[in-house]
Amino acid sequence: MANIGTMRHSCAHLIAAAVQSLYPEAKFGVGPTVENGFYYDIDFPEPIGEAELLNIEIRARELIKNGVKFEREEMTIDEAVKLFKKLGQDYKVELLSDIKNKGTTRVGDIEEVELSGDGVSIYKTGDFIDLCRGPHLDSSKEIGAFKLTKLAGAYWRGKNENPQLQRVYGVCFEKQNQLDEYLNMLAEAEKRDHRKIGAEQKLFFIDDIVGKGLIMWQPNGTIIRNEVEKLAVEKEREAGYVRVSTPHMAKEELFLTSGHLPYYKDSMYPPMVMDDGTYYMKAMNCPHHHIIYNHDMHSYRDLPLRIAEYGMCYRNELSGTLAGLLRVRGLAMNDAHIYCRKDQIKQEFKGVLDLTINFYKIFGLKDYWFRLSKWSPKHLDKYVNEPENWEYSQQVIREVLEESDVKFIEAEDEAAFYGPKVDTQFRSVIGREESMSTIQLDFAAKKRFSLTYTDETGKENNEVFVIHRAPLSTHERFIAFLIEHYAGIWPVWLSPVQVRFISVSEKHTAGAESLQKEFFDLGVRADLDSANETLGNRVRKAVAEKIPYIVVVGDKELEGGDWMIRIRGQEKQEKMSKQEFLERLNNEVSARQQ
Amino acid sequence: MANIGTMRHSCAHLIAAAVQSLYPEAKFGVGPTVENGFYYDIDFPEPIGEAELLNIEIRARELIKNGVKFEREEMTIDEAVKLFKKLGQDYKVELLSDIKNKGTTRVGDIEEVELSGDGVSIYKTGDFIDLCRGPHLDSSKEIGAFKLTKLAGAYWRGKNENPQLQRVYGVCFEKQNQLDEYLNMLAEAEKRDHRKIGAEQKLFFIDDIVGKGLIMWQPNGTIIRNEVEKLAVEKEREAGYVRVSTPHMAKEELFLTSGHLPYYKDSMYPPMVMDDGTYYMKAMNCPHHHIIYNHDMHSYRDLPLRIAEYGMCYRNELSGTLAGLLRVRGLAMNDAHIYCRKDQIKQEFKGVLDLTINFYKIFGLKDYWFRLSKWSPKHLDKYVNEPENWEYSQQVIREVLEESDVKFIEAEDEAAFYGPKVDTQFRSVIGREESMSTIQLDFAAKKRFSLTYTDETGKENNEVFVIHRAPLSTHERFIAFLIEHYAGIWPVWLSPVQVRFISVSEKHTAGAESLQKEFFDLGVRADLDSANETLGNRVRKAVAEKIPYIVVVGDKELEGGDWMIRIRGQEKQEKMSKQEFLERLNNEVSARQQ
Repeated sequence: MANIGTMRHSCAHLIAAAVQSLYPEAKFGVGPTVENGFYYDIDFPEPIGEAELLNIEIRARELIKNGVKFEREEMTIDEAVKLFKKLGQDYKVELLSDIKNKGTTRVGDIEEVELSGDGVSIYKTGDFIDLCRGPHLDSSKEIGAFKLTKLAGAYWRGKNENPQLQRVYGVCFEKQNQLDEYLNMLAEAEKRDHRKIGAEQKLFFIDDIVGKGLIMWQPNGTIIRNEVEKLAVEKEREAGYVRVSTPHMAKEELFLTSGHLPYYKDSMYPPMVMDDGTYYMKAMNCPHHHIIYNHDMHSYRDLPLRIAEYGMCYRNELSGTLAGLLRVRGLAMNDAHIYCRKDQIKQEFKGVLDLTINFYKIFGLKDYWFRLSKWSPKHLDKYVNEPENWEYSQQVIREVLEESDVKFIEAEDEAAFYGPKVDTQFRSVIGREESMSTIQLDFAAKKRFSLTYTDETGKENNEVFVIHRAPLSTHERFIAFLIEHYAGIWPVWLSPVQVRFISVSEKHTAGAESLQKEFFDLGVRADLDSANETLGNRVRKAVAEKIPYIVVVGDKELEGGDWMIRIRGQEKQEKMSKQEFLERLNNEVSARQQ
Repeated sequence: MANIGTMRHSCAHLIAAAVQSLYPEAKFGVGPTVENGFYYDIDFPEPIGEAELLNIEIRARELIKNGVKFEREEMTIDEAVKLFKKLGQDYKVELLSDIKNKGTTRVGDIEEVELSGDGVSIYKTGDFIDLCRGPHLDSSKEIGAFKLTKLAGAYWRGKNENPQLQRVYGVCFEKQNQLDEYLNMLAEAEKRDHRKIGAEQKLFFIDDIVGKGLIMWQPNGTIIRNEVEKLAVEKEREAGYVRVSTPHMAKEELFLTSGHLPYYKDSMYPPMVMDDGTYYMKAMNCPHHHIIYNHDMHSYRDLPLRIAEYGMCYRNELSGTLAGLLRVRGLAMNDAHIYCRKDQIKQEFKGVLDLTINFYKIFGLKDYWFRLSKWSPKHLDKYVNEPENWEYSQQVIREVLEESDVKFIEAEDEAAFYGPKVDTQFRSVIGREESMSTIQLDFAAKKRFSLTYTDETGKENNEVFVIHRAPLSTHERFIAFLIEHYAGIWPVWLSPVQVRFISVSEKHTAGAESLQKEFFDLGVRADLDSANETLGNRVRKAVAEKIPYIVVVGDKELEGGDWMIRIRGQEKQEKMSKQEFLERLNNEVSARQQ
């Protein structure tokens, strides 16, 4: 079977052939393959719209039916120039003159044309002739399943002083089921887009007057943010963490001590010069936590000390790279630093790993594995020079991973310079792979910050190991992930509105209001829709808002009988008493049920 | 009876006379009155220590016993110069030459010498002669109760190129009981100093490498901070607030819109220039909240909208003015903004007032009153030009205060430019008066931010009134106040450690540990002292740490019998079962009992 890349490239030629037969005056730019498919930049006589894509696709399928071939021919550059001039293909002529003058047609990353001795190769696909390095399929019949997906504008050769062409995107797979799966995934990704759902559900927004990459969490998003934080605080308390609260900035002296300055300076917000020194926004919480550690004396009995803070950090990313919650400048990190003795590294790594796995379980995340990044004894210059600590800690971390019976891989020469680390890799519901949590051991901090403890003999020991960890990543990244994961259908414990009461008519409003208040006072996020609209409309609205429980309040409900409750995702309403309903809610929330 | 100021000034002369008789070579600077007493700057032949103050005081009392008089005499400047030269009083000669050359001896705020026609006046107190405007008592017998309190260094005339004198401080009252009361208050203030208790209890610290005015909340302080915040969140939820989370900075465009720039610029952190504009740390949360309000459309039915956030603000105070938690640069404000219609102003002010009073009750604060600051129709230029809104809102706010039956005063021409406000004034446990909470109505924001809602007829109404409020002030200020208020003896719900288990001996450690864990898992802040020290020492340590409950764990406790519990502030231990103890704890914490 042909290489999938070749198939996609042939598909691009096929589409161009279809375009030429529909628009004989079209002029063609370049048509390379991309992930999952291809595109072709085309100068149409008149700009086309999305509707025309279907016509092009139909014409392409006719060409396949006709068994159109891909025929290669070689010729000299001058012959090719003559040919494409005759065809009126000015862009191809320009490419050829580049080959002649510069020896290359490199346009961005695309090297479109292969030199063949002194000459070039062309491909014929029916009446369409393209300048192309190939290779191609023999026949269009070999093309598997394809679909044109979208149109976009694209300047010729990426320069905005050049004419704007239209870029026709297509996807192409060997089998129809692969294409279907991919298209489903695309549709799903669009449906689950965290920016779209974030706006629909009024979770957050970004406003240019406040600034790029700075999240404005609206009331609904703040509820989710606070529930996630509450979970972290609760589980970290159980795991023996203490909490601190530190400022969002510090003097440059602190960041010079930590080494963030000057090396990390470009990623930090610019300095603020005050009457007593130069200040920077913090890009990480560790330096502040180290100062907290150092403020008191510690005996060997006090360790491990686990200092936690959902710390807000600020990083100076280029404004053009910022997008939604995934690329931000202000990030609230599920941060903590564990200060421990060497003999405690194993137990502490185990503790963090357990905590991490427990978090994933709570959110129903299953498709993940770990990656242990190690140093390389071959690149001593890249790493803190403590070979014994490297070998010892990598060994105990490996033991933890093995004993925890989790999937993991090892990556040599991928550690941070200050120590080995364990990252989590996720496959998201739409199949995208991404990293989420991190656990990093740090051999460097103890020297930079003179971290010490008093050992059993009363002597000062400076072998304090630091573990940086953020199982829940940052609020921004994690909530973006959750929005996509749940597609906005929040489990009850995270749902901004848990119960919607809807009064049947005006005479039920006061009663519905007092039920709503009763639930609210018990800690339920209950609201009331008594708007002047039909009952049907209000129910449909609540369903569209994905509210877990909808209670329509009429005479029966107010008389104290059983309620009929609309449960999200269930066809049939369920009958239960108010007390049963409250218990169910309470159980679901306290168990953080999925 | 003589004026108390005169008495204090005479007391200063008396002290100087006592010093002269003990240290004949002493040279005298100036000796003015200050609040509650006086000081005298003296150049002693050898610097004296605190111990010598008592000798001086004893000598002064002898002079009183001898009935030393204060005798006035007038003379020309030249005669006075001659006199003080003879006495070797160089500082007085310098003052006289200033009078002669400049017509004044103003040193800082002190005008020490009164011109008497062309001449000056002097006072004799026994052998001591002083250049002085007077008036004085006739006799030292009229001096009430006094005490020398402390010594400090002071440069002559406040300039550090001048010789350093020693400043002898004293306090003086008409009656002994007034003096005693004042000295008690001083001792109490020192005992309750929030910086002292903050360090002892490891609540917070300030570290120069992080920066001045930036609070590092340690685990114990963070517990208190979080409990206060939890209280606010809980009560604000009940009162119908929603919560948001906004970034700590914004582009200058936002602060130009709000008017903070350029008027408030000096109080803000310096700008940070990024690739997409100029950013400032926020000094207030309101502009961000207004943007949240404006992000959605609001109907008349949606109002009032109450947006709350414990927002962290940063203000650029001069580093020299910063002190403890009371003058800081980073402040976490118990902030919220209420957006309401004109007809809702009264109910919303009432709501905030009720919330405020409820908070005070929870903390056992009783000695407070309110102050309604109004505009003045005589100074129209100072205020937003909406006379009708001023008159209407002042009237309804007054009604709220009257109907709430609270103490309040009214202050004309003291409002903010944007609207009337109600501040709380407190008398603290040590008698200091300070302001704490504020409720401010804002007529200006609606125009600056184009705040609108859709009224009953579907029209856009731009009369959105904003209430700024911070009943619990900032974490920094409020916790400083609480530390002083409780003198570090925290009610159980705020106490960083609520229960201390102490194992009698090593064989009880494991059992005590499992009890501690049992309590901890039930949400109690319980810890364990199983250190290798005597039981007595460990109990004394726990008592000194002001821990509310101390449970000594021996055989009996582990066998499941009743416990003898040491309750803070009680002489006698109380006997109760584990279950009774847990219930008591639970009740105290959930009722936030004082």
